[in-house]
Amino acid sequence: MSTSSAEARSAHPGHIMASEIAEQPAVLRRVLDEGAPRIREVARAIAARDPRYVLLTARGTSDNAALYAKYLVEVVLGRPAGLTSMSTTTVYGAEPDLRGCLVVAVSQSGGSPDLVASTRAAREAGAITLAVTNNAGSPLAAVAEYHIDVLAGPEKALPATKTYTAELLSLYLLVEGLRGADGRAAQVLPELASSLLARGDEVHALAERYRFAQRLVLTSRGYGYPTAREAALKLMETSYIPSLAFSGADLLHGPLAMVDGASPVIAVVPDGRGGEALRPVLDRLRGQGADLVVIGQQDHVDAASAGFALPGGVAEEVQPILEILPLQLLAHEVTVARGQDPDAPRALAKVTETH
Amino acid sequence: MSTSSAEARSAHPGHIMASEIAEQPAVLRRVLDEGAPRIREVARAIAARDPRYVLLTARGTSDNAALYAKYLVEVVLGRPAGLTSMSTTTVYGAEPDLRGCLVVAVSQSGGSPDLVASTRAAREAGAITLAVTNNAGSPLAAVAEYHIDVLAGPEKALPATKTYTAELLSLYLLVEGLRGADGRAAQVLPELASSLLARGDEVHALAERYRFAQRLVLTSRGYGYPTAREAALKLMETSYIPSLAFSGADLLHGPLAMVDGASPVIAVVPDGRGGEALRPVLDRLRGQGADLVVIGQQDHVDAASAGFALPGGVAEEVQPILEILPLQLLAHEVTVARGQDPDAPRALAKVTETH
Repeated sequence: MSTSSAEARSAHPGHIMASEIAEQPAVLRRVLDEGAPRIREVARAIAARDPRYVLLTARGTSDNAALYAKYLVEVVLGRPAGLTSMSTTTVYGAEPDLRGCLVVAVSQSGGSPDLVASTRAAREAGAITLAVTNNAGSPLAAVAEYHIDVLAGPEKALPATKTYTAELLSLYLLVEGLRGADGRAAQVLPELASSLLARGDEVHALAERYRFAQRLVLTSRGYGYPTAREAALKLMETSYIPSLAFSGADLLHGPLAMVDGASPVIAVVPDGRGGEALRPVLDRLRGQGADLVVIGQQDHVDAASAGFALPGGVAEEVQPILEILPLQLLAHEVTVARGQDPDAPRALAKVTETH
Repeated sequence: MSTSSAEARSAHPGHIMASEIAEQPAVLRRVLDEGAPRIREVARAIAARDPRYVLLTARGTSDNAALYAKYLVEVVLGRPAGLTSMSTTTVYGAEPDLRGCLVVAVSQSGGSPDLVASTRAAREAGAITLAVTNNAGSPLAAVAEYHIDVLAGPEKALPATKTYTAELLSLYLLVEGLRGADGRAAQVLPELASSLLARGDEVHALAERYRFAQRLVLTSRGYGYPTAREAALKLMETSYIPSLAFSGADLLHGPLAMVDGASPVIAVVPDGRGGEALRPVLDRLRGQGADLVVIGQQDHVDAASAGFALPGGVAEEVQPILEILPLQLLAHEVTVARGQDPDAPRALAKVTETH
């Protein structure tokens, strides 16, 4: 199942992506067992320097992991956090004073030149710099003061899947470490991930729904919002269906006008405060006749047109590591149903060289 | 032209939005003449307290103005800046320590409850707080320590137009004031805005192109990126065409796969470093057979399928105040061509109550 030859790819479209999706329970277990001690050590060293605020830098799938970390830093750690615009440094040569700031660069490959350049610039500007990558030998890992290896193993399909959840879990353990906690809420994840990934037949049925879709809207709130964005990106880069992700609040500030009976909506409904805050948005969407599919608790699925039920009793801040799994499967299934190969979307390369 | 009765609206769909678009040269002049002294005073008071970094808070159109300000703060002022996720405060109750931080809340109405709540929380957490609104009597203006009135006058069409450019100019003058500069690059804007808005016939021709479009991709880089996002939002909330905005760099990290000969792309090409950085992206798009329409300098328009030429010799950091004008006209024209009323998109209210 792990060959990457072009021949094997065309014979079994999407088998590389499928096998990497399936690896995730083992990857999560590896991060918890082998990665956690090193992450705790890095967190302890950084905490001792007491950063006042945190800036996160990333692109693509890793940018969605960075957004997840931003919520964690603000809510769990109680420090201000922001996502950077790399171009201010790499295109415009901005040189902000970054003393007292922790800059976290997140990247699967650790190879994108703009990420390396902006991390180097941040370090020179006085920031504490940390690279979170799947490649300990990468230029990004070398240029940052600290490095966390997300231990996902080589990723061969172009759409990132196992590196995304490995980044999420590593960032969760980092923030837990920064506040001196042990991150025990994550211990249940490998087993729950296994049971979710065993329900591929349910996702197969959902995929039929979108085989001829011209567009998709994804929405969530709070911790679930990065999941909505990552699902939209995954669907766009594999199936080529234009997929728009909005936080539930932003959806009400304009784009809601676009949603009608012909507009399928996928809502990621966290079990907790994020889901509660999303409730009025779901009511509005139903009121406009949207076809609403829910990834969330069974009662929310029952109130929607269709959905995929998630297990209860999981801490809200680690739910994103599970929520994305059926959506990765969905992107894969829809793409295969449309006669395309999710392993190798047109026009993409595994290491994107942006400057 | 200024009546807001439902009757007048249906007889002349879009006439309110059209008249508010046309008011922009006068609004920009008013901000420069009447607004600037007060903005300079606020900037001086804030600069004396020497904020270490800046967080911006907004939703919808104002969020795109906030993104513009983020580039200015990083590049021109040389301070770190980030956009906040309001839900961390209003949904999850995060209480970050904000001493040394300037929090800028941007809102046309100054009425959205979540913005008011998060600004109050920021002030209690030690931040210097500034409200930038079009309503000096609003709850947001009251709750923030400082207030800047963007002086756009009452906005009656649901899609924000004149308040957007008034916010951009006010934020530009604010950042100029924070660094002790006079913002003279903005003096040319009212006159140039007039001459751009007089070229409605060119936009009318462009609008024909999108009358039956199923989707649009908008892209830019650097200072032009907020323009791409605002144009996408405007097109979505008026014409209901799903419109996806990506920074040129992010487009290469995934969504490029989605672009083919059936995918119209609108690129906003700044005259300066942002446009230079966008060049390889434009080459890739042309290589994939995209229908590329450019808003930018004449040479870029000539190399594209079609476009709208902008005047040269304008400082890159104020170009966004001009770039958006043909795109506002475009949203209006496409919507009327599709038989809808841009003044009153379905499902929207002027003050959106999100919590």
